Amino acid sequence: MERIYIQDIKNYLDKEVTLQGFVDKIRDLQYVQFLILRDRTGKVQITVEKNENNTVLNDILSNLTLESTVFIKGKVSLNEKVKLKGVEILPSKIAVTSTSLPELPFDYKSKDNSLRETRLDFRFIDLRREENILFFQCQTLFEHALREYYIRHGFMEIHSPKIAAKAAESGAEVFKFNYFGEEATLSQSPQFYKQMAMASGFDKIFEIGPAFRAENSHTSYHATEINMADVEISFIQSFADVMDVQEESFKYAFNRLKEVYGERIKEVFHVDISNTGVKFPRITFKEAKQILKEKYNYVSEREDDFERKEENLLCQYVKEKYQSDFVFITKFPFSARPFYHMLDEEGLTNSYDLLFKGVEITTGAQREHRYEILKKQMIEKEIDPKDLAFYLEFFKYGCPPHGGYGVGIARIMMQIFEIDNIREATFIYRGPTRLKP
Amino acid sequence: MERIYIQDIKNYLDKEVTLQGFVDKIRDLQYVQFLILRDRTGKVQITVEKNENNTVLNDILSNLTLESTVFIKGKVSLNEKVKLKGVEILPSKIAVTSTSLPELPFDYKSKDNSLRETRLDFRFIDLRREENILFFQCQTLFEHALREYYIRHGFMEIHSPKIAAKAAESGAEVFKFNYFGEEATLSQSPQFYKQMAMASGFDKIFEIGPAFRAENSHTSYHATEINMADVEISFIQSFADVMDVQEESFKYAFNRLKEVYGERIKEVFHVDISNTGVKFPRITFKEAKQILKEKYNYVSEREDDFERKEENLLCQYVKEKYQSDFVFITKFPFSARPFYHMLDEEGLTNSYDLLFKGVEITTGAQREHRYEILKKQMIEKEIDPKDLAFYLEFFKYGCPPHGGYGVGIARIMMQIFEIDNIREATFIYRGPTRLKP
Repeated sequence: MERIYIQDIKNYLDKEVTLQGFVDKIRDLQYVQFLILRDRTGKVQITVEKNENNTVLNDILSNLTLESTVFIKGKVSLNEKVKLKGVEILPSKIAVTSTSLPELPFDYKSKDNSLRETRLDFRFIDLRREENILFFQCQTLFEHALREYYIRHGFMEIHSPKIAAKAAESGAEVFKFNYFGEEATLSQSPQFYKQMAMASGFDKIFEIGPAFRAENSHTSYHATEINMADVEISFIQSFADVMDVQEESFKYAFNRLKEVYGERIKEVFHVDISNTGVKFPRITFKEAKQILKEKYNYVSEREDDFERKEENLLCQYVKEKYQSDFVFITKFPFSARPFYHMLDEEGLTNSYDLLFKGVEITTGAQREHRYEILKKQMIEKEIDPKDLAFYLEFFKYGCPPHGGYGVGIARIMMQIFEIDNIREATFIYRGPTRLKP
Repeated sequence: MERIYIQDIKNYLDKEVTLQGFVDKIRDLQYVQFLILRDRTGKVQITVEKNENNTVLNDILSNLTLESTVFIKGKVSLNEKVKLKGVEILPSKIAVTSTSLPELPFDYKSKDNSLRETRLDFRFIDLRREENILFFQCQTLFEHALREYYIRHGFMEIHSPKIAAKAAESGAEVFKFNYFGEEATLSQSPQFYKQMAMASGFDKIFEIGPAFRAENSHTSYHATEINMADVEISFIQSFADVMDVQEESFKYAFNRLKEVYGERIKEVFHVDISNTGVKFPRITFKEAKQILKEKYNYVSEREDDFERKEENLLCQYVKEKYQSDFVFITKFPFSARPFYHMLDEEGLTNSYDLLFKGVEITTGAQREHRYEILKKQMIEKEIDPKDLAFYLEFFKYGCPPHGGYGVGIARIMMQIFEIDNIREATFIYRGPTRLKP
């Protein structure tokens, strides 16, 4: 008999079913025993009367520890007195499939932030919490929705190499290792290879994969290993085409998330999935600085970029004015951008940041695809073209105009679910002092 | 006006369209110029008469180099004399969007295996070949089809860490690096973390991601960085459940590939996508050795595993007998398997290999989830349980019976397309002597 999930139990009233899951609770009373069984989809009560016919089952339940796993065969029975779904299982068979030690290292059911390090040490137990299971179900759906969008629109998926000879962006800190006598680095971005795919005529590509940063940062939003969704598109007319793709793909993915898990997310995280019905406002960097000054009387010390506070205020502004959780800020000064962003006539970059609920989640741009200009921009940024000779090659034998963007999966998931620490939004977090489990 | 793809051109007869792509050929004759434009979807002829009205266009075409990229606006016109689709474009505008050097490093259009290293040096040009574009479109579809199958069947996707403290399997060669003063390794398999997800109650998971092997192997099927599709399933009754999932998901993905690209694959690769209509035969290791002896009079020196020749013969056998390109070989001796495979009463592993067209592409198994037995098997394999203490923890606090499998993406793609070298089946190949581009 095939195992069913607890969420489907009401389709099997008065029928015999097989259930498998974890022991969530046990109450062993004088005349009856209750076991609350938990699987990924919910919980249900198993009821066993203490009597002569049930001695085998009674014995099993008496010796059962919490968090052990069990196999249960039994009849689904309506019982209005049962709070959980108004249903109970009257078992004919219970088999213990694994036994937990009687004491867990911590009480995983209450999310105690003061115990975060212990929770991360025992992440495999911490992940059993209902909100974590839901979170990663949502992440699965969100990524899949992005993929569905890309693939329906003719994008190809690439797997760029994570073992690289050189760092993708100068100055950034990378992990280095011995590669059969040569020095190799761990890729901090698929940037160069997604541009390479444009030179190869792949036309439109995406990648969802890991990226590595050797930054010794201990903030709530840095990690040494993250997963990125990256996109690159050939033959664009301007970087507005790139923003269009990002906006449309996000709208699709947010709507899918809302459709499938919107109610559950509200229950568990007390968060509404952002309304994506409005067009994401597009404001130039210059306009944004004016708004900050005129509306909020805020002038930061950074002239070519934003402080976090400014990003926050800008999001507040567009939320009030346009009812949007998203805003594109365009045309950043070149001094704040990498060498490969294309410049306009005024020397500003054809680039954008996407801010979402107060935080920057994406940088996108049209790339400079003209060999000589690209080389010139490299030199302006004090990068020796010899160091990136392999990359410059991509632009010698025909390379379409192109642009793209990248977004950190954990970063956007944190913003959607309003989780304040990337450690809680990553399956297994990696940071300077955390290499385990 | 939105750009269209060349494959759709016949929907726009007598209409003005915008095309973008690479210059595939130019013929500059006395009275007329022909440009063959290529995009990811096909080729089309652009025709420009030499006359006074066309001097601007004539000049552009006279100076154009092959493999440059161009923007073309023009009318789609029927012309029976044109071999390519019976259609030509009569352009009103041509703009050069990037200029190729007149000489390419090699003639990428003919796949010359003696030039393989040059082709890999300039992989971005090599990838322009029609068969390469098709190959990676097929890979995109194949992976997406697997994902569709998994997600429809309730699997969650995980991203396990690629930065790891310890090697996943003892004895294997791993890349090591300095991680803020500690020694870290690059993950060679998500094995331990997908099992961890079972202990976390994720129930069913998959991952498609990179894995790294520091083997100094120079064969046609080894690489130091590969991409794997990994699956793990909780609450299985036996490893037959694992084989069922693999068989069904493969059938779905192969059928999707056949539906969408079957004809094109036949044209370009001269290969039929395998028929998956028959049930994949399941033969025990012991039976397989008997077949090899009795039917092929072949007894190899390896008693607990197969040589490549044996895999080949076994595939030949099932092809003849069952018309299947696939065969599951089950119940391998423990000496040929890792410590975490579950044993049956006879001491054989509850594991399998999946062979496909003569080559092993998967190992799958039920895992040992009982702490004490797992530890005992570890010791039998001469692994110090202290070295894998973090992994053993997963089995202390309740862990469902579970099993799974992993398959290398390039390996299966090679077999589907009958490509003889993994270098040709990887976007950017990494091997002991190849760290670039």
